[in-house]
Amino acid sequence: MVLWEVCVLFLAVLSVCECEGPGLVDAVSERRAEESHRQNSAIALLFTLLLTATILTTWLFKHHRLRLLHETGLAMIYGLLMGVILRFGVHVQPDLIDAPLTCVFNSSPRSLLLNISGRLFEYTLSGEASDTPRKDAPNSQILKKVTFDPEVFFNILLPPIIFHAGYSLKRRYFFRNLGSILSYAFVGTVISSFVIGLVMYGFVACMSAVGQLGGDFFFTDCLFFGAIISATDPVTVLAIFNDLKVDVDLYALLLGESVLNDAVAIVLSSSIVAYQPSGSSSHSFEGEAILVSLGVFLGVLSGSLVLGTATGFITALVTKLTRLRNFPLLETTLFFLMSWSTFLLAEACNITGVVAVLFCGITQAHYTRSNLSAESKKRTEELSELLNFLAESFIFSYMGLTLFSYQNHVFNPAFISGSFLAILLGRAANIYPLSFLLNLGRSNRISNNFQHVMMFAGLRGAMAFALSIRDTSTYARQMMFSTTLLIVFFTVWVFGGGTTPVLSKMNIRVGVEEDEEECITELDDMVSGSCSAAWPIRLWYKFDHNYLKPLLTHSGPPLSGSLPACCAPVARCLASSQEYKSVQQPHDDDSELILNEGSSLLYSDLLISSDDPSSGQAEMTEDTPAPTQEPIQPLAQSLSESLRLRL
Amino acid sequence: MVLWEVCVLFLAVLSVCECEGPGLVDAVSERRAEESHRQNSAIALLFTLLLTATILTTWLFKHHRLRLLHETGLAMIYGLLMGVILRFGVHVQPDLIDAPLTCVFNSSPRSLLLNISGRLFEYTLSGEASDTPRKDAPNSQILKKVTFDPEVFFNILLPPIIFHAGYSLKRRYFFRNLGSILSYAFVGTVISSFVIGLVMYGFVACMSAVGQLGGDFFFTDCLFFGAIISATDPVTVLAIFNDLKVDVDLYALLLGESVLNDAVAIVLSSSIVAYQPSGSSSHSFEGEAILVSLGVFLGVLSGSLVLGTATGFITALVTKLTRLRNFPLLETTLFFLMSWSTFLLAEACNITGVVAVLFCGITQAHYTRSNLSAESKKRTEELSELLNFLAESFIFSYMGLTLFSYQNHVFNPAFISGSFLAILLGRAANIYPLSFLLNLGRSNRISNNFQHVMMFAGLRGAMAFALSIRDTSTYARQMMFSTTLLIVFFTVWVFGGGTTPVLSKMNIRVGVEEDEEECITELDDMVSGSCSAAWPIRLWYKFDHNYLKPLLTHSGPPLSGSLPACCAPVARCLASSQEYKSVQQPHDDDSELILNEGSSLLYSDLLISSDDPSSGQAEMTEDTPAPTQEPIQPLAQSLSESLRLRL
Repeated sequence: MVLWEVCVLFLAVLSVCECEGPGLVDAVSERRAEESHRQNSAIALLFTLLLTATILTTWLFKHHRLRLLHETGLAMIYGLLMGVILRFGVHVQPDLIDAPLTCVFNSSPRSLLLNISGRLFEYTLSGEASDTPRKDAPNSQILKKVTFDPEVFFNILLPPIIFHAGYSLKRRYFFRNLGSILSYAFVGTVISSFVIGLVMYGFVACMSAVGQLGGDFFFTDCLFFGAIISATDPVTVLAIFNDLKVDVDLYALLLGESVLNDAVAIVLSSSIVAYQPSGSSSHSFEGEAILVSLGVFLGVLSGSLVLGTATGFITALVTKLTRLRNFPLLETTLFFLMSWSTFLLAEACNITGVVAVLFCGITQAHYTRSNLSAESKKRTEELSELLNFLAESFIFSYMGLTLFSYQNHVFNPAFISGSFLAILLGRAANIYPLSFLLNLGRSNRISNNFQHVMMFAGLRGAMAFALSIRDTSTYARQMMFSTTLLIVFFTVWVFGGGTTPVLSKMNIRVGVEEDEEECITELDDMVSGSCSAAWPIRLWYKFDHNYLKPLLTHSGPPLSGSLPACCAPVARCLASSQEYKSVQQPHDDDSELILNEGSSLLYSDLLISSDDPSSGQAEMTEDTPAPTQEPIQPLAQSLSESLRLRL
Repeated sequence: MVLWEVCVLFLAVLSVCECEGPGLVDAVSERRAEESHRQNSAIALLFTLLLTATILTTWLFKHHRLRLLHETGLAMIYGLLMGVILRFGVHVQPDLIDAPLTCVFNSSPRSLLLNISGRLFEYTLSGEASDTPRKDAPNSQILKKVTFDPEVFFNILLPPIIFHAGYSLKRRYFFRNLGSILSYAFVGTVISSFVIGLVMYGFVACMSAVGQLGGDFFFTDCLFFGAIISATDPVTVLAIFNDLKVDVDLYALLLGESVLNDAVAIVLSSSIVAYQPSGSSSHSFEGEAILVSLGVFLGVLSGSLVLGTATGFITALVTKLTRLRNFPLLETTLFFLMSWSTFLLAEACNITGVVAVLFCGITQAHYTRSNLSAESKKRTEELSELLNFLAESFIFSYMGLTLFSYQNHVFNPAFISGSFLAILLGRAANIYPLSFLLNLGRSNRISNNFQHVMMFAGLRGAMAFALSIRDTSTYARQMMFSTTLLIVFFTVWVFGGGTTPVLSKMNIRVGVEEDEEECITELDDMVSGSCSAAWPIRLWYKFDHNYLKPLLTHSGPPLSGSLPACCAPVARCLASSQEYKSVQQPHDDDSELILNEGSSLLYSDLLISSDDPSSGQAEMTEDTPAPTQEPIQPLAQSLSESLRLRL
């Protein structure tokens, strides 16, 4: 219904044909600008209504508890339908006056002045044009407008998605499985990239031998394909896991891996591009160049990590040292502006903004959030959730649309089937060997069934799409883009839809309520030091607890205790009045290290709140009842309750 | 401090000079695109940090209860500083390769293909260039980048501001003073526009006679100036009113007027442009053309009204008929998408999106909001507030920046002093005669002191700026733009800063707490029909109460009662189950008409909530205690409490 209205409206808007008489240049160009503005508005309206339709259908599905299709899958279907209508249903007269003129220069200036009837007009370079306009798309102008600049994905749509992933990470389970997650995300993704790259190189060589290839496809292209298609995005699977309350460790492993491997995929693909600048003629693989690539990879990754963390630290310090918490609007705005500036700063410094934003999100959640007022905590979470939802729905409906609106698709059946095989092999080479190695060191083993589910949950999504659409200038890149699109469709619809049956087949525990005893035992373990965490992680916890938390938040022991005596003035200057108060009260600081669950569990929050007693009271009642005032049994209960709330 | 860091960073980013060797076209253009992206990121970062600095200083001012300068004034100062630094402090080598080439055509194509070393590059028209590059700006490229496309204001920044004005309008006082507000906003703004236009025409004629004018300035230009400068934006004044709890009627008059006269200014200025298309040679004023202008004015205004209201109605129906309220995230997203689509739809239909969004905001607040869940009510309000704050701070800091970054300023002292006089006269011609006429019919007179304060509160802000920057192609428009900028600076800093002294000098009541008796009396008046509202307004109330509210929300009498018998099936289809339940309960429906204060007072809301008893319960406790259950005295108390909360 909504869709139908959209079409009618869209047709009505577009059918108003431009009939330009031989008027003045001014009037013509003004009318043209107006017309262009109207078309842009209509296209934006189209996307808005696509999203609206997605929301309403999502609600219907949720209302009737259908788990067949996630909202991302729905968004893709609506996008697909719209693409079909735009491609085959709408016929717009090409704008004759805009037929291109040709003149010959020997360089490509960024801007150009044209002398027209004695007046100067400025033109700017919008990119290279394909010299053979396709015959099969009668309304290629509209399709071109709908397929807007792919940099929008990187600069507007991905940052909120990645930030949300970092900010909403359930840090308790994330940290408990940190070693495994890092292994899957870093080592595993690199393995998977290379396996996919090598398999595809074999395929491409065979295709080239039998004459199935229509253009160049170098080894570096294969590696690039491996890098972009290795980022998993199990958003569909995780949504179902969440509904069904699947085992928390499995959930944490999948979520953590998918968050961090986005970063790896971006950095890996950009290192491969840096290693092989387009335009240079050598596409072979040399030892020295590999080192350069590796250097770029490590440099960008650590640069993003440092930058994202640094902005997080600054935000934490600002929210700690000022009393912005009395003005939630200002606090929330500052929070988002600082996080957004991480992205911009990283882009301005030529490292990857999206990756910086991820680490910024994690830092903000770990430090800044505990400084925020209860009101702002809620607001930042909700806004981050909303932006994530919007961006995600948009990307997925755009993906559906692109299948028909993009005009340079290269669908090569051999390449497509090859890449389906390659991603299966790549995923298997990530999960099974690493799980085997990890199980040697883990106290709670990753069972075979868990491994099969992780293998199955290797969906591809927004990141693979955004990376592949970024550059579609060559034959190889166009083929990669079309193939990536199909892989995303297939995995989201088939793997996403098959999650529930697979879970029941694999006998995965569902309906897991937080185990109260487990929490308490673990808490005791941490306090007594008999915890199972590896030593680098425990070292980090100690450092975090003794120095970073007291420096950046109101919690933890006072800095004056942990720093050497010579630093006392600094420590006093950075310490908050709340901190000193909190020393008097006996509480298990260590528990907070691993149990820090955002607003629901923060001992420290409850202790500090604010020096204004009334607002502190408000916060206490909003969070769980103050655990320090109660014996251990109700504490356990409140812990488990709040965890249930969170998960 | 922050500012200093910004500069250092900015310099560091920009000083990396492009040294392009005689490489391949590809590599060069790719590097150039990267460089351009980095510059854009740096500029965006600049604005982000400007906003951050504004937020922190705003907090400092609020913390120390300084009412000298509103955050908008602060934002302007920071923008101004940044403009000075960019203009005089940063020196960037002009990009030599980008020196424009010239070729001669006899039409201005929108896109252009260039054959460069055998490859095609596409160029798009970015506007007319001034043929005499200014000598005094060494880094005009950067300044040009900072001064981005003014359509951004109309398409991105104004909609949230205007929507927020509509959505957060305190409808109780707005409706009580509806007649006066409409008079000031519509009649008054038109009077003011024409007075300003005529005064300026006199000035311009004199200036032309003594040779003070450097270019053409037609009568239509004068009228256009009158239209754009008549929109008041007393955001500073109202913020102080809010802090000081100034008399509610004065507050309502000023707020209502400033919200609606934005719409009038937009429509009026665009009718004048439509009346006089640029390029046509006649600039005189003819009878027929006035009628055309009037037609455009009324057409666009009513079109926007209908469209905005229609989208509001659709949203209300969707939220009423579905159970989206169980999923606040979906509900909130839908709400904003629908509101945003109003804007796009209006733009696509060639009427004014900003005006449509205003009426949409009012409709959403009046109908849709009472269908939303308590959670979504809060979320939509907070998000609208946040977007408004961001957009407003951005516009004002951008204004400060433009004073130095814009390169075609025309500061003409005679014109500037003339326009200061004109806006005073225009404002006086709006307020005093209309107040006199209104006082003839009003039961509570608008006192002389009130009139003086309204005269004083005629600040100019975002709307005047956005309208004046939209087109700066001619000498006349450039002079208007520069003058508008100065008027905004002056009024925001001087009038905004002088509010508190003026209030005390005029003996305006401050610290007004809601008068409990007044509320009750008014409530009784409405019920008994002896209310002082004029008959068209009472007629509207009846219609709203008997038909619109039951149709679009869960409140009011059931439709089956008010509609004729033949419409019974329709009525039954549109009625909600809640509605039928609510009939059983005795409550004063009429009171709700004028006392409907969003979530805080809705009898209907309390009655309907949801058929899920638990969520209904939650909502009751979140709002005021259910008044229907209590005797009249506590009801009065709860009314006044909730009003105090709201205002």
